[in-house]
Formats: sequence, structure tokens, C-alpha cells
Amino acid sequence: MPRKLQNEDSILRKIADVSQLSRGRGAGQSVALGIGDDAALLRPKPGHEIVLTCDWFLEGTHFLRAKHPPDAVGWKCLARAVSDVAAMGGTPRCFLLSLALPETHTGRWLDLFLGGLRRASRKFQCALAGGDTTRRDEILINITVVGEVRAGSAVLRSGARADDILYVSGRLGEAELGLQIVRRTKGAASKNNPLIRKHLYPEPRLALGQWLAKKGLATAMMDLSDGLSSDLPRLCAASAVGAVLESAKIPQVQTRDLALKHGRDSLQLALHGGDDYELMFTVPPRKAKLLPKTFRGVALSPIGKITRGRELPVLEENGRKSQLIPSGWDPFRKKH
Amino acid sequence: MPRKLQNEDSILRKIADVSQLSRGRGAGQSVALGIGDDAALLRPKPGHEIVLTCDWFLEGTHFLRAKHPPDAVGWKCLARAVSDVAAMGGTPRCFLLSLALPETHTGRWLDLFLGGLRRASRKFQCALAGGDTTRRDEILINITVVGEVRAGSAVLRSGARADDILYVSGRLGEAELGLQIVRRTKGAASKNNPLIRKHLYPEPRLALGQWLAKKGLATAMMDLSDGLSSDLPRLCAASAVGAVLESAKIPQVQTRDLALKHGRDSLQLALHGGDDYELMFTVPPRKAKLLPKTFRGVALSPIGKITRGRELPVLEENGRKSQLIPSGWDPFRKKH
Repeated sequence: MPRKLQNEDSILRKIADVSQLSRGRGAGQSVALGIGDDAALLRPKPGHEIVLTCDWFLEGTHFLRAKHPPDAVGWKCLARAVSDVAAMGGTPRCFLLSLALPETHTGRWLDLFLGGLRRASRKFQCALAGGDTTRRDEILINITVVGEVRAGSAVLRSGARADDILYVSGRLGEAELGLQIVRRTKGAASKNNPLIRKHLYPEPRLALGQWLAKKGLATAMMDLSDGLSSDLPRLCAASAVGAVLESAKIPQVQTRDLALKHGRDSLQLALHGGDDYELMFTVPPRKAKLLPKTFRGVALSPIGKITRGRELPVLEENGRKSQLIPSGWDPFRKKH
Repeated sequence: MPRKLQNEDSILRKIADVSQLSRGRGAGQSVALGIGDDAALLRPKPGHEIVLTCDWFLEGTHFLRAKHPPDAVGWKCLARAVSDVAAMGGTPRCFLLSLALPETHTGRWLDLFLGGLRRASRKFQCALAGGDTTRRDEILINITVVGEVRAGSAVLRSGARADDILYVSGRLGEAELGLQIVRRTKGAASKNNPLIRKHLYPEPRLALGQWLAKKGLATAMMDLSDGLSSDLPRLCAASAVGAVLESAKIPQVQTRDLALKHGRDSLQLALHGGDDYELMFTVPPRKAKLLPKTFRGVALSPIGKITRGRELPVLEENGRKSQLIPSGWDPFRKKH
């Protein structure tokens, strides 16, 4: 059967279907005008600020065409951009999708990709509002998410103060271990393994971020995308503070043997593994008792303390002290 | 001298400088929080809607590394996204820059690119608010522009009605001819030729778009990015109308001999050439007399009429009638 070549307008119609569906669920009622014009129109909610973020999701850099199921690519490209809105304490409202595709991927691959994207769009109540589509040999994705937050209540990176307690949600290093398993598995990845699921279908901590912002509990917050050892220095630099980490308190993968089998120590995974999309936040000591041990089933773990100095020591269980060296994901780092 | 490899944070600092400069001129006073956090914050103006648009600008697809000066790449990637805001009658407020670069381009190339981007940011009063930067063998750019428009006054593609007069600003085909000259020139392009300048440094018609929206003169509007023969059918489809074009009235390049020298007929250039970023808009006959012949030095030319039928005939000077065939820029069109 001859493969029908499709032009941009017909691909746009496929994509517009996602917009219809995601808006049908009420996610996009605030999008006054969506796909099909020069630009989208959004009606801002009175008393709120607009939250803006964008993220690359590029074949070969952020995902592998042969390894990553298309619906996971669709889910994750939106989830990781939405995670930045969660990290401000905001609520996502709509997104723009920029997509570059090979002609060979405008059929089944695109349908599955849009299926994953549609599920994410419904789950996060974030409607597709527009985008740009072009042809390219490699699959390139860029997502812009627009959210909102009550004016003045966004939680920034810059608000951490000495003696604040440093928390993280969930367990760190799981997504990185999931990636290792995916890399070493022949063919496409199994979606049943919870570590692989965490890597393929991350869940941005929207409800937690919104709750922390609403209650005014967190002084600073960011999401962990590049790994604790890369992201904590960024929060500390923005707040002009340091931090001391207690390695025994850092929540790690529960399958330490599996980690070792893949040549990884679970503490190293927790310190340097990327893609967890958990939230890291600071809470003043007097408010810490208001924080539950878990929030909607996700553990909230105190892992250290903010300090006045600019250093970032890690206290190990054996009493030794080492300095935290950023070793997470940085595409511009010189590789040794 | 050993070339110093730069990491993402230092490149982000360079980019953040553009943000400081563009905000220093007052463009970004509404950006409550810019580069350096998980997301940017924007304070919406009461009574206004948010205009959202994004655009790819990819090496090999939209520009050539060896032919296009880096500062033109910086100018144009923002100008073409801002043009979509102009086409709604909106005012740009801020933009997000997603940039993927080879390590070799993080020095001089990046500096020149950011110089062009900074000039455009000042000219369009559109402040850099955030972005995402990564390493890649090819130069990939994605720009999201956020603008605003008084609620209810945006000019959509869907408002054209039978008997409305169809207008375009400026002359069509100039940028395409500029591109032909650039392609045939050895080495980097000269910036003195006005056709090359139109190709390298397009000027989005912001003031015209805002004026048409404010005065309520245009029933439908879009910008000409892919060429008249591709873009007019889109406006007509959105409005469920047809149009008749008078070829003699279409404003063409003034250098017909030069066009022929490059193997191009000036009417064909005007019909199918892309990248002009002129505005195409429709005006009811009773309001047409309110429209000046030029607006701030840019010609406004009536080129045809909107019709009830869905056809798109072109009336030629010799009395012949042909159908308009979309032959502008469509990266997914089957190449014959």
C-alpha cells in the first residue's frame, strides 16, 4: 500500500484534535482561542500572575527513538515542563507544542505520541493552545507551558534562609536507575517496572507545590530535573546561602541490589541522578511541624539544613564530611 | 591558546545579560521575575488577554550556518515570532528563548547572535524572560513570544466576510528574492542590499496591526510568512469564504530585471515567496475609505476581494483567470 505523504495542514489537524479533547474536559476553558490562528489567546484570571516556562525534548539528547515508546515521549515532554510550574507553586493552564518530525513519523509514531500527550494534558489540566510543526530528520520537541499563580504567592529559588530545613519529595535516583535499565534492555522498554515508569512517565508534584505555596510553608522551591548535586547549588546560589546534607536522610531507591547490579551505588544515584521531577524546598524550623510526613502518598523527607556559609558539605553516615560536587546532567559540561 | 569549554551556567549568564539590557530600556517592567528561576512570572495588564505564539528557527531548515550572519539569526528568530503577535493586533511583552548550540558556537557566534537578539528585543520592546539551553551538533532555536491585546479586540483569521476588500502591506516577494541572492553569493551575505536586508532583518508590522485592531478596521488578519498562495487559503478556510485576486494590483519587487536574472518572475515571487512578514487583512467596503494609502511609510495595497464561494481565482492582466495553487513554503509538502 503506498504510504500517503501528509502535508503540514493535515498534521496540524491531527494535533488540533488533541486540543479539542483536552479542552473538552474543561482544561482549556480559559483558552479564548486555540490552534488555527497566528497566535493563541488566554484570558488571565484576575489577581493572578502568569507563569512561563519552556523545555527542550530532543531525540538523542533527552530521549532515544529506538528505546523510548512514542506515548512516553508525548507524556514526558509535557510532564517535565509542567514540573517547572509545580516548582513555583503554580497551576498549569495551557501549552504550546513545537514539533519537528521526519516524514516517516507522521503516521503511527505521531498518533501514539499525541496519545501520550493527550493523557498528560488531561491529567495536568493543561490544554494545547497552539504550536509550530515542521519537517526534520530528527525528532525535535519544544514545549512552552503557561500557568498561573496568585499574585505574590509564587515560591522562588531565592527565598531560602539560614536554619531553614531542606526537604525533598519522593525518592531520588529512581528515574536514573530506570534509564539505566532501559539502556541495557534490548528493544523497547517494559512499562511495568516501577523504576522504568518513573523514568518514562514522571508525575510532576503539582498538588504538593500548590499546597506549599498556598499555606506559605516553603521559603524556596525548585524541581529536581538535573540531579540534587546540580540543582541544590542553584537554589543556594539564588538564595546566597549554603547547605549541609545528611546522606543517611536522603531517600534512595528501595532496590539497592538492583542499583549495584547496574554498577550504581544508591546514594550516588540519589545525589547525581536526573529526571526525578521531585520537589526540593526549604521550610523555616518553626513551620516544620506543620509539614506532614507524606503528602498524598508521597514522602516528604528532611535531608539537611540551610547554612549562612556558601559551602555545600555532605555528612556521611561514618561521620566523614565531603563537598558536594555538581555531577548531574549538564549538556555543556566538559566530559572527562 | 586552549579553548575554554563553557558550562551551561556560564552560557546562561551571557544570555541573562540580554535580559538585563532589554529590561533596562523599560521593555520588561511587566516581567515580575525573569531568567534564573524554574519559570518566569508576568503580571498581566487588567482588561487584556494574553497572546501566545511560538516558532522554530532551525539551521538547515530556516537558516544556513555558513550564509546567515549570527546577528541576523538573532534578529530574525525574534522578529518572525513577534510578527504573529502583530497579526493579532497585539503588543509583545516578553519572550522565552530555547537554544541548542554546538560547543564551538558558545563564544563569538553566541555573542553576535545575542547582539542581534538584543537589538530586536529593544526595537520590539519585548524582554527576554527565560528559556532553556542545551548542547547539540546543530543550531536549533525556538522562540515563544507572549503579548497582550485589549480583551475582545484581537483580529482573528476567521472574521473575513464576502465583499470585504483584501489588503497587503509592503511589497511581496522581496525577502524571497533576497534569499535567492544570498544563496548565490559566495561566503557571507552583504547587509547593504535592501532585498537581502528584508530577508535577514524583517520588520514585523506591529504599529500597523495595533492600529487596525484599535480602530476596528480589519475583520480578519494574518501575517505572510509562507507566501500569499499558502497563507490566503488559510485565512479563507478559517473564515469559510473564497477570494479573487487581481494580479496587477499585487505589489511586487521593484527590481523585475534582477528577479529575472535569478530566474524568477516577480509575480510568481509575490504569490509564492515566503518570509515577507507583511500583514494581509480584510476591510469592509464601507470602511475602506478610512484606510490611508500608506501607514508610516509602508504601502497598503488592495489586491482583491473576499467572495462567498470557496474558490481562489487569480485575474491576470491579460483577462485570463487561473486558480491559486498553494506553492509557498510547506516543509511537509510532497516534493515533485
